[in-house]
Amino acid sequence: MDARIVELAKTLEAKTIARRRDFHRYAETAWTEFRTASIVADVLTELGYEVLIGDDVVAAEAMMGVPPANELERHRQRALAQGANPVWVEKMLGGKTGVVGVMDFGKPGPTVALRFDIDANDAVEAEDESHRPYRENFASVNKGAMHACAHDGHTAVGLAVAEILAALRADLAGRVKLIFQPAEEGVRGAKAMVVKGVVDDVDYLLGMHFGVTLRKTGQVACQTEGFLATTKLDASFTGVPAHAGAAPETGRNALLAAATALLNLHAISRHSQGASRINVGVMQGGTGRNVIPANAVIKLETRGTTSAINEYMYNEAVRIIEAAAQMHGCQVQIQEMGGAAGCGNDAELVARIRQTAERMGLFKEIVAAGNIGGSEDCTYFMERVQQRGGKAAYVMVGTELAAGHHDFRFDFNEEALVLASAFISGVAADLLTGK
Amino acid sequence: MDARIVELAKTLEAKTIARRRDFHRYAETAWTEFRTASIVADVLTELGYEVLIGDDVVAAEAMMGVPPANELERHRQRALAQGANPVWVEKMLGGKTGVVGVMDFGKPGPTVALRFDIDANDAVEAEDESHRPYRENFASVNKGAMHACAHDGHTAVGLAVAEILAALRADLAGRVKLIFQPAEEGVRGAKAMVVKGVVDDVDYLLGMHFGVTLRKTGQVACQTEGFLATTKLDASFTGVPAHAGAAPETGRNALLAAATALLNLHAISRHSQGASRINVGVMQGGTGRNVIPANAVIKLETRGTTSAINEYMYNEAVRIIEAAAQMHGCQVQIQEMGGAAGCGNDAELVARIRQTAERMGLFKEIVAAGNIGGSEDCTYFMERVQQRGGKAAYVMVGTELAAGHHDFRFDFNEEALVLASAFISGVAADLLTGK
Amino acid sequence: MDARIVELAKTLEAKTIARRRDFHRYAETAWTEFRTASIVADVLTELGYEVLIGDDVVAAEAMMGVPPANELERHRQRALAQGANPVWVEKMLGGKTGVVGVMDFGKPGPTVALRFDIDANDAVEAEDESHRPYRENFASVNKGAMHACAHDGHTAVGLAVAEILAALRADLAGRVKLIFQPAEEGVRGAKAMVVKGVVDDVDYLLGMHFGVTLRKTGQVACQTEGFLATTKLDASFTGVPAHAGAAPETGRNALLAAATALLNLHAISRHSQGASRINVGVMQGGTGRNVIPANAVIKLETRGTTSAINEYMYNEAVRIIEAAAQMHGCQVQIQEMGGAAGCGNDAELVARIRQTAERMGLFKEIVAAGNIGGSEDCTYFMERVQQRGGKAAYVMVGTELAAGHHDFRFDFNEEALVLASAFISGVAADLLTGK
Amino acid sequence: MDARIVELAKTLEAKTIARRRDFHRYAETAWTEFRTASIVADVLTELGYEVLIGDDVVAAEAMMGVPPANELERHRQRALAQGANPVWVEKMLGGKTGVVGVMDFGKPGPTVALRFDIDANDAVEAEDESHRPYRENFASVNKGAMHACAHDGHTAVGLAVAEILAALRADLAGRVKLIFQPAEEGVRGAKAMVVKGVVDDVDYLLGMHFGVTLRKTGQVACQTEGFLATTKLDASFTGVPAHAGAAPETGRNALLAAATALLNLHAISRHSQGASRINVGVMQGGTGRNVIPANAVIKLETRGTTSAINEYMYNEAVRIIEAAAQMHGCQVQIQEMGGAAGCGNDAELVARIRQTAERMGLFKEIVAAGNIGGSEDCTYFMERVQQRGGKAAYVMVGTELAAGHHDFRFDFNEEALVLASAFISGVAADLLTGK
Repeated sequence: MDARIVELAKTLEAKTIARRRDFHRYAETAWTEFRTASIVADVLTELGYEVLIGDDVVAAEAMMGVPPANELERHRQRALAQGANPVWVEKMLGGKTGVVGVMDFGKPGPTVALRFDIDANDAVEAEDESHRPYRENFASVNKGAMHACAHDGHTAVGLAVAEILAALRADLAGRVKLIFQPAEEGVRGAKAMVVKGVVDDVDYLLGMHFGVTLRKTGQVACQTEGFLATTKLDASFTGVPAHAGAAPETGRNALLAAATALLNLHAISRHSQGASRINVGVMQGGTGRNVIPANAVIKLETRGTTSAINEYMYNEAVRIIEAAAQMHGCQVQIQEMGGAAGCGNDAELVARIRQTAERMGLFKEIVAAGNIGGSEDCTYFMERVQQRGGKAAYVMVGTELAAGHHDFRFDFNEEALVLASAFISGVAADLLTGK
Repeated sequence: MDARIVELAKTLEAKTIARRRDFHRYAETAWTEFRTASIVADVLTELGYEVLIGDDVVAAEAMMGVPPANELERHRQRALAQGANPVWVEKMLGGKTGVVGVMDFGKPGPTVALRFDIDANDAVEAEDESHRPYRENFASVNKGAMHACAHDGHTAVGLAVAEILAALRADLAGRVKLIFQPAEEGVRGAKAMVVKGVVDDVDYLLGMHFGVTLRKTGQVACQTEGFLATTKLDASFTGVPAHAGAAPETGRNALLAAATALLNLHAISRHSQGASRINVGVMQGGTGRNVIPANAVIKLETRGTTSAINEYMYNEAVRIIEAAAQMHGCQVQIQEMGGAAGCGNDAELVARIRQTAERMGLFKEIVAAGNIGGSEDCTYFMERVQQRGGKAAYVMVGTELAAGHHDFRFDFNEEALVLASAFISGVAADLLTGK
Repeated sequence: MDARIVELAKTLEAKTIARRRDFHRYAETAWTEFRTASIVADVLTELGYEVLIGDDVVAAEAMMGVPPANELERHRQRALAQGANPVWVEKMLGGKTGVVGVMDFGKPGPTVALRFDIDANDAVEAEDESHRPYRENFASVNKGAMHACAHDGHTAVGLAVAEILAALRADLAGRVKLIFQPAEEGVRGAKAMVVKGVVDDVDYLLGMHFGVTLRKTGQVACQTEGFLATTKLDASFTGVPAHAGAAPETGRNALLAAATALLNLHAISRHSQGASRINVGVMQGGTGRNVIPANAVIKLETRGTTSAINEYMYNEAVRIIEAAAQMHGCQVQIQEMGGAAGCGNDAELVARIRQTAERMGLFKEIVAAGNIGGSEDCTYFMERVQQRGGKAAYVMVGTELAAGHHDFRFDFNEEALVLASAFISGVAADLLTGK
Repeated sequence: MDARIVELAKTLEAKTIARRRDFHRYAETAWTEFRTASIVADVLTELGYEVLIGDDVVAAEAMMGVPPANELERHRQRALAQGANPVWVEKMLGGKTGVVGVMDFGKPGPTVALRFDIDANDAVEAEDESHRPYRENFASVNKGAMHACAHDGHTAVGLAVAEILAALRADLAGRVKLIFQPAEEGVRGAKAMVVKGVVDDVDYLLGMHFGVTLRKTGQVACQTEGFLATTKLDASFTGVPAHAGAAPETGRNALLAAATALLNLHAISRHSQGASRINVGVMQGGTGRNVIPANAVIKLETRGTTSAINEYMYNEAVRIIEAAAQMHGCQVQIQEMGGAAGCGNDAELVARIRQTAERMGLFKEIVAAGNIGGSEDCTYFMERVQQRGGKAAYVMVGTELAAGHHDFRFDFNEEALVLASAFISGVAADLLTGK
């Protein structure tokens, strides 16, 4: 079967590259992936997958960092103008741009989930001849949105895998779920799909990423380390304005509250069980020099090498913020803007993936482990699957990068697309056959 | 002579009201009063005053809170389009919109200076029928600029006084200097004229304001209390950005520096010799939640009932800000954005003004003192005159207000214009005759 | 009657000086004035006054800053050994060392209260020949207690006045209350007597002080300004200790809570209606460098030119302290350790006192007003009397000082004793006769 | 040779236990180990070692946390009264209580150093029958000093090893240095011996500890992990006092400086390369509630899993402290009170020690690694030896504990003494023979 898979992947190569470039050209940022998701849904439908979309796979109450309604509406119209299928777009109102394709192979077997993230970054793409997407005319036409993290490639690989597995359906058992997740940037999207129960019935879950610490085509890692659990928070303080010269004592100073919070947030104690992080990255408040400032916002994130450590940081942060508001007679509203879990790969599954990698012989080098070096909300899916007795792993596929991730000159070697398509299909097929 | 003055003022009333409404309609904010100043210069010239303008009366190096060059240029063109005299505008490049009219009466006598402020507020004027300037079609056509502090009235009164004194010139001795000061809002303009030496030869200086604590037409106060010395500061902190998850220790956190400064600024000790104030009214910093913030700005003001107390506050503030930057390995740039002195009226001069007020019989009620309840940079002129042996006072002329100063519905009873024109002329004439 | 009073005062001069020196020699600090109060009670009894003491004049629940029980017991025994009357001492258990002597003159008239403070300072008296109390052998034998604020003189004057008024009783109407108040230092004692209702029936209340801003014998002021309302607070934070290297996150850091409180306390906004003060004068916490500190204490005071401003400062302080504890997961206990009101003298009463001063002709100079320049808890009595419709004033009697108040070389010119005895008696007699 | 060593150790067991109990009974805290060191010096001399003591092995300028002179003098006299040899005590003036015994075996070979720490803890030993040292009459007679960390055992083992190696001298090559280090508690002593060059010629260095994570007799670990580099600091702020009511602005508030430092110290950024720690364990300042506090002290420690991380923490801390002082116009003096390096064991040496452990067969269980879980200044010796090309390791010898380290009921199973004596001798002999 490995040989058939590789053959199929090669056959699909041109189509996969074309899809990647199409997604790149029409880059869509978090919760506005109306066109991308609509294309995914169309392809899956065509291939015979049951397609779940919008409310069926995204819990509205758990969506984080959603753009305001007028922004969403603007994007909906833009997407329609760029060819999105109105039937699907209708189902994604409110930014619920997640899609899941399910195929049941009709024989007893495990449920295998593969997760691909589909959103672009907030970045203005380079426009000069040295940047291939520009030179070859697939640079983003959506100003301010750019695929600078290879999610265009992930999505294209996801569709190639969908096609390969569909082609092999007669020989597979169990069920496959292809999860196309919006809003990975800012780690905002996975939670809403997890809360909806998308992976509650999953036995094996596989995530993947191009590049990061594997910067050569031909490299692969069957597991990935360095996931930091994280929570993204905004805290808005509201006080009472007053004339700073004439009656300062009648004011309630929101900037004093926010500054006190900021200082004490950074002073949260280190944790003895692993690394922790805290950063107030943005603070804004006040209206005029001579007015006691009655409003202030801080934007922060906590992190930890485990979900428990991040939860400790989060709990400390919330208590500090609330007490700082109270200290200065202010109100405060705290809003979760994003989050990811900290988690590990299951050794047994990693070993099995490695056997597949060795057997397929696609790669020149099997690296011990990739390192994500930050936060990725695929961990929410992984953690949920593991909590319910399943197994999860996250693989990394090497590719040369034109510039670092999130750089406005980012691009990758498209030769990796066929390797990833074949490899992910191979791993899935291995799990969906035999035992 | 009192009778002639009153008569002249009445004759000028319609013209004065028309001028006030014209200034109101073409409201110009600090350092952009190209049209207003140009009209003032034209009128003074016509009346036979020697006109000093631009570089001759404004020290560029002491101008505070000047808008950026492109803003100034935009206003220059706007003013020209609104009828400003290009000859004068040419001399006011860079925002040097101060004008001084001098008339020497050819006989030995004192030099008397009268100061009028000419700039509008940063406010969007009310646009509904209940607001008279809108209803009667003299609301500001310059969006975002509005005369909400009666400086339009002050300027019109200044021109009426110019005309009255010119008419009386044969009977006057000494010299009069009519100072039309830009940029009083934000207390940014007086210092640059004082530094230029505009009042270095002045024996008596008189400032005036409509309204404030005198809210009835027919009231007058021959002195004003409650001036708070003040300094307006911006502090810009620069650190080093870093990824908050991957290498936080390589950053230099400008928000930590700014927050530490903010807290400690508010903790500056009270002063036993009088009231002091400190307010950080605005704080902004950082670029993203996951980046160690490398920039932060705080906008603050210090105040004190005397210049010495304000200087204490200022010195403490500067030391705290610089140490906060150093504490977090950041750079900081501190910029003075405005300032006013704290000062008192000379009792002897006040008594003489009161005699004039009583003699002229213009007012129903002579109030013991007005109260400015804040900061006014006329104090810089007053302080300089007093330091050099002269005398200064600040009078307040009552008028009904439609809404408080700086309110977007502000308006005042124009009947007060003629009273002020006559009174100020009378006080000046009293000083410029006999003794 | 003035002449008789002066005569009586002179006759008593030697006794008054002797009493002052006796009190000086056996100086007793706040709430431990067992011997002083016992002597006062003996003298008053002998003179025919009804004596109220202990529970009858001191509300235990309102006593502030009381020494611990073992300290009180040590002082009780010390006082008995130094000649205190055991009958009175028995009634003052727990430190209730207040005494009030009441005499009703049997004719309708006002109730006049005179207040004298009796406690010594926490100071070690100078022991060298240049210090008169040492040279003339009446320096304090109670190490650490010293009359460095002239309360020994106040008490002696109180007893002289008691004797004079008793001698005049046939000619007086109404009722006199002589209040001997403990624990003025640290402003800890007046409140407990006020709460007990000691001045609830008083029409006129008079307080007095030697020296302060009147440093010449022969000077007198019939009113005193500059009283600052104040509250003295201790806040004790309790956290959870933890090994700072091995498990810092399990601790609750009381020093972080206290330091955050300290910074924010000093940052309480100025008040536009008058002067305010805040000082955290003492902070202590922690046990070892390598232990997360689980305890911290701050000792602070708030002040204001009016009771309302001080109450504002107090309310802000309490909220800040409680929020700081909560911010760091700590408990906090706040205890009031002292307090005084801010208040003014009644002009009408002051005028009457001034007439008496002028009529008696005792003083060379009647100063417009003394200035206490700080806090004095006599204000609690004054405020209560005024709140209930009575009138109050606080006089200052001039005397040369060997060193400033609270200095370990403090001493005063005893010639002032007879002047004060006669003057206070004269003022009381004036109020207790005729009108 | 292993057999002879074990035999010798057994023969010495009673003597070793007796010595341990003697040291326990006359416990001496950091820099006051006059009696302990004097006994060590006597024994080493007797055994034929060259003895270096005082100035020869301790660099005065690098001693940290030394008690004041009067304390040292008191301890000198106490030690002499308790039998210390005056000849040695004379050489240890100023607290230089380090001793090194050197024996050259006359044949070419490596220099092997063994390090034993000799000081007791600041603790008041339990006095009840359940505590064996009390029951068997060897509890500390020096109130406030107690061997609660087994250094009494370490010292006794050191002397047993000295005797065993001396007995084997004919069969050994190279040179042995037995380092008896004072002041390990508070990590104050090692640096001064390292600075003196005591291990500059050492090829192999071995440290040891009883207990910690090995709580059973019969366990041993041939290496130890978890060393945190650390620096102990005291910072003393000096401001200017002022009356908090009358003239607060004339003060310089040392508590504001210290509190600002405290908050910002805890806010030092986490380090991405490993764990870091910061703790301000003690803070004290101010004299009275109504005085602007003019003095404040903070006692803190920084830690890091590597010396580089600790150095980062230290540099940040110093900058913050100095800037906090400057911010409030205060002076500050920073003093290093202790320190330890972070370091690792040399794998090759560890393997060789493990072979010896296995060969000697003394232990039931060879644990992979002990964990010191904190800071130990033996690391300074280890780091220096490693920097100069030598190898170092730190072994842990199991023993049952009556209570945790530093507990006032601490005691250990003395059966471990003979095991440690034999094992350390065996490791040393292995290095000093053959290769």
